[in-house]
Amino acid sequence: MPNASLLKEFESLIGKENVLTSEADRQCYSYDATPHAPVVPELVLRPTRVEELGPLIKRCYSVGFHIVVRGSGTNLSGGVVPDNRETVVILTNALNRILEINTEDCYAVVEPGVVTARFAEEVRKAGLFYPPDPSSMSVSTLGGNVAENAGGLRGLKYGVTKDYLLGLDFYDAEGQLIKTGSRTVKCATGYNLAGLLTGSEGTIGVMSRLIMRLVPPPKAAQAMKATFASTVAAAEAVAGIIAAHIVPCTLEFLDNVTLNRIEDFKGIGLPRDAAAMLLVEVDGHPAQVKEEAEAVCEVLRQCGGDVQMAGDAKERDAVWEARRLALPSLARMRPTCILEDATVPRSKLPALMTAIDGIASRYRLELGVFGHAGDGNMHPTFMCDKRDKDEMERVESAIAELFEQTIALGGTLSGEHGTGITKSRWLELEVGEATLAFCRKMRRAFDPKGLFNSSKIIGV
Amino acid sequence: MPNASLLKEFESLIGKENVLTSEADRQCYSYDATPHAPVVPELVLRPTRVEELGPLIKRCYSVGFHIVVRGSGTNLSGGVVPDNRETVVILTNALNRILEINTEDCYAVVEPGVVTARFAEEVRKAGLFYPPDPSSMSVSTLGGNVAENAGGLRGLKYGVTKDYLLGLDFYDAEGQLIKTGSRTVKCATGYNLAGLLTGSEGTIGVMSRLIMRLVPPPKAAQAMKATFASTVAAAEAVAGIIAAHIVPCTLEFLDNVTLNRIEDFKGIGLPRDAAAMLLVEVDGHPAQVKEEAEAVCEVLRQCGGDVQMAGDAKERDAVWEARRLALPSLARMRPTCILEDATVPRSKLPALMTAIDGIASRYRLELGVFGHAGDGNMHPTFMCDKRDKDEMERVESAIAELFEQTIALGGTLSGEHGTGITKSRWLELEVGEATLAFCRKMRRAFDPKGLFNSSKIIGV
Repeated sequence: MPNASLLKEFESLIGKENVLTSEADRQCYSYDATPHAPVVPELVLRPTRVEELGPLIKRCYSVGFHIVVRGSGTNLSGGVVPDNRETVVILTNALNRILEINTEDCYAVVEPGVVTARFAEEVRKAGLFYPPDPSSMSVSTLGGNVAENAGGLRGLKYGVTKDYLLGLDFYDAEGQLIKTGSRTVKCATGYNLAGLLTGSEGTIGVMSRLIMRLVPPPKAAQAMKATFASTVAAAEAVAGIIAAHIVPCTLEFLDNVTLNRIEDFKGIGLPRDAAAMLLVEVDGHPAQVKEEAEAVCEVLRQCGGDVQMAGDAKERDAVWEARRLALPSLARMRPTCILEDATVPRSKLPALMTAIDGIASRYRLELGVFGHAGDGNMHPTFMCDKRDKDEMERVESAIAELFEQTIALGGTLSGEHGTGITKSRWLELEVGEATLAFCRKMRRAFDPKGLFNSSKIIGV
Repeated sequence: MPNASLLKEFESLIGKENVLTSEADRQCYSYDATPHAPVVPELVLRPTRVEELGPLIKRCYSVGFHIVVRGSGTNLSGGVVPDNRETVVILTNALNRILEINTEDCYAVVEPGVVTARFAEEVRKAGLFYPPDPSSMSVSTLGGNVAENAGGLRGLKYGVTKDYLLGLDFYDAEGQLIKTGSRTVKCATGYNLAGLLTGSEGTIGVMSRLIMRLVPPPKAAQAMKATFASTVAAAEAVAGIIAAHIVPCTLEFLDNVTLNRIEDFKGIGLPRDAAAMLLVEVDGHPAQVKEEAEAVCEVLRQCGGDVQMAGDAKERDAVWEARRLALPSLARMRPTCILEDATVPRSKLPALMTAIDGIASRYRLELGVFGHAGDGNMHPTFMCDKRDKDEMERVESAIAELFEQTIALGGTLSGEHGTGITKSRWLELEVGEATLAFCRKMRRAFDPKGLFNSSKIIGV
C-alpha cells in the first residue's frame, strides 16, 4: 500500500472516492477474460477527467509503480492482468464522454472509456455507422479496442478498429501530452503514432482522446445460413466466396461441437447433426445485396451446403443469435475456457480445420471451433479445467502445435485478441529474435523504467 | 569519395556496375520534385537483390555515412534530397520484382522498387484492384508510396497507401531483418510496425518486401464534371456531397487559374470563365452508381453547378485528362513551382478556399488551386522564381499563413505529401513540442548515430 502522503496526493488530484485501496476493490481488477492467475494490484485509480491522466502518470512513474490501464477488462490475451503486486491500475471507465459526433465530416471524438456499443448506437442515431463490432462490444471500451486493435464480425468488409482511428492524444511516461493524426480523412503529417499505438496494449502511453472515422450506413442487408456435412466443405465454401471476389460484411463459422453446446444451452433449433454451419450477411445497395446473396448461395450449394435465407428481420436475428451464443455456450461446459485466435490466409482455412481436428484428437481435448471464417480468423476454444495439471499440459502442447501449424500455413498468432502475456512466448517463432530486439529498443526509449504494462507483448 | 578498399567491398557485394561514383551519376540523385537546393551525395548504391540490403546498410552505418533510400525521386516534401555530402543514396529501382499476386486470398507480395502503375496494371490483369493512385504513379514506387503514405485521387472512397499495407520486412540500422504484419487480412500479433513505418520517410529502416492488400474491382463507374461561378460554391457542393453521405471514389477540384493554364497548355476545351470545376466519379454496383450519380448531380446543381455527365469512355477520359494536366500546366508557367498539401475537414473547404484567396492577394502571388476536394486535401500551387528573393520571401510568408489557417480550421499540414524538410519547421505548430520530443526519443532508439534521412520530419 502506498504511504499515506502519496495517497493524499492522489486523493487531492482525483477525489478520495476514486482512489481504491480496499482488498475487495483491488481484487476486482486482478484478472481479465483469460484464465491467467489473478494478480492483485497495489492501488486502483479512477480519474474522472482526462486532464488528470498526465499528473497521475507522472507521479506513478516517478514513484516506480507499474502501470496497467484498464477499460472494461474483457481482454483475451491477459493484457490487463497486473504485472505484479506493485502495479497501479488506472481505470478509464469514468473517462466516458462522447465529445463530438460530426455528421458533416463523418468523424467522432471520444474519451477512451466510452463503451463501444453505446458509441455505435449514438452514431447510428446520428445517421452514420461505426462498423467495428468486437463480440465484447456491449461492455468493452473504445480505448481498449484501440489498444488491442480489436476486430469483430464485420472485419471482412469493413476492416478492424485500426481502420477507423484517424488520430489520438496520449500521455507518455513523463505525463506529457502527445498528439497524432487529425480530424481530416487524410494525414501525412509527422510520424503515424496512431498506427503505432494501435495494438500496443498499454505499453507505450495512456490514451486520452480518440478521433474515430465514421461511414454512411449500408442501405440493405441479407443474412443466410448454411449447414455442411464436413468442416472442410464449409471451409472450402468460405475460400470459394473469397476467391469469387464477393465481400460479405460477415462470414462466420460454427462447428458441430459449438452447435450442440448452443442447443444444450438454449435450444434454438440448430441442427445437431451438421458438421458445420456458416452464417453469412451481405450488405450495401439493395441491387448489389440481391446479386451477392444469390452468388454466395450458389457457392455454398456447390460446396454441399444446405442454405436458408433469412426472410425477415426475425429470421435475421435468429441467424446472429446462434453466433452470439457460441462462446457463452462453450464457456459454461467446463471450469476453464481458453479461446484461441489463429488466423490464416482464407484459402488455407480447409488446411487449418484439418490441423485443428488432428490436434484435438491427438491431445484428447474437448474443443469447439467458431470464428470469423471470412477473415481466416478462427477461435478454437478449449474446454478444460485449470486444476487438472495433466489436461492443462495437453492444452499447452496443443496450443503450441496450433501456432506452429498456423505459422507454417502463412498465418499469424492473433487475428484480433493481441499478444498480451498468453502469446508472447510464441512471438519469436513468428517474427524472429531481431524483431523482438528492435521492439525492445523502442520500448526502452519510451519507457526507460519498464513500467508500462511491462510483462505484455515482449519482455522489457 | 569513400576510400578504395571500401568501394571494392561495395563492388564485391552488389557488382561494380551498381556502385556509382562519377560526378554525373551522383548529380542525378541530388534532388527530388521540390525546389530544395540540390545536395550531391558521396556515393550511390544500386542493390539488385533485397538480401544485399542488410550487409550494405550495416556497412554504411558502421562507417558513419548518412543513408537516403530513393525510389523514383518524385517526392514532394524533400524526402529524398541527401542530408549532406556524406550521404550514400541507396536506390531501390532494381529491387522491382512482383513476387506474388494471390487472387484467392487477395494480396500481393512485392519488392519496394516496383513502379506503382506497373503493379496496378498487373493486379488488374489478374482480375483484382489496387486502388491507391498517387498522381506520380507512372514513375513512383510502392516503397516510396509506403514511406510517404501516398494518397491519390481515389482516397475518398478507397483510402490511401497505409490502408493497403498488410505487412512488411525491413532492415534496421544494424542490418537486421525486421518482420511485421502478415499475409492475413487481420493481424494483432506484436507491435504494428507496418503502421509505424508507413509515412516514416526512410528515417526508421529500409524496406525490403511489402505485402499489399487487393480488392475486387468495382463493376461500374460514372464520371461527371460541373462548373461553378465561384470557388466557394464549388467547395460548398463538395461539403454537400459528403454531408449527404455519398462517397464518390473521386471528387476533384480545379480553380479558374488552373483551368486557364490547362487551356493555354493543351486547349482541351475547358471553360475559361468558370471560377471552378469539380470532377466527380462514383463507382460500384451499376444500380448504386446510377443512383449516386443522380444524387451527386442534384447536389452540384443545387449549389449552382452546370453539370455534364460523361456519356462514354471517351468523355470519361476527357474528364480525367483535365485533372492529369493540372500540375504540368501550372508548373510550366514560371521557373519554380511549389505544390502545397493543406488538408481540412471537408465542411471547412469553403473557409479554406476563402483563406487561400486572401493569402494570394495579400502577398501578391500567382497561384493555382486544385486537389482532392473530397478529402479536404487541396494543393495550392505557387508559381514563382526561386532566384527572386523578394518573391520567395512572400511565398514563404504565404505558406506560413496558409498552415496557420489550415491548423486553425482543424486541418493538417500534409494530406499526402509528407513532412520531409519542407514542412518540418511547422510541425511543432500542429503537434506541439512534447510530441517532437517523443519522436526524437524513438528515432534515437532506432538510429543512435542519426544517419537515416537525418534532416527529415524532425531533427535528430
